[in-house]
Amino acid sequence: MPRVVVDVMPKPEILDPQGKAVLGALPRLGFQGVTDVRQGKRFELEIAGEITEAVLAEVEQMAETLLSNPVIENFTVRVEQPVAGADR
Amino acid sequence: MPRVVVDVMPKPEILDPQGKAVLGALPRLGFQGVTDVRQGKRFELEIAGEITEAVLAEVEQMAETLLSNPVIENFTVRVEQPVAGADR
Repeated sequence: MPRVVVDVMPKPEILDPQGKAVLGALPRLGFQGVTDVRQGKRFELEIAGEITEAVLAEVEQMAETLLSNPVIENFTVRVEQPVAGADR
Repeated sequence: MPRVVVDVMPKPEILDPQGKAVLGALPRLGFQGVTDVRQGKRFELEIAGEITEAVLAEVEQMAETLLSNPVIENFTVRVEQPVAGADR
């Protein structure tokens, strides 16, 4: 079944306390070499039927209204497993 | 700067209440055609220096010990912006 992935990340200028907490924990666990961590959300949507441009436009709408807060977050929409015969 | 992305998703057999809440909200917002939603986490790690096999192995360790709960979650590690000259 075709799957659309929506990644939602805090905008670069927005403080990301979850990411900072991870970044602070890494050295205490013995991990070096990571200079920054940002934490966001990943949504996997199973779509009934073929993934068309219209479906992707609708997913963009979902991402903007429900899955993300456009004031503080950016999102990307992409098809993860293109179906044979589909455009993308 | 090279970036490693860690995606953490609930295992298929684990109930995902956040995803179910999104799935339930979509029809109320007028969106049709989505049959399932899973919600997980996305981490973007900025790495100092080149991304080698050793660095990726260390990120796998981080993902297993800090970023995910291996009992209920699966994770994937990948390099998002391969550096020129790097293996991957």
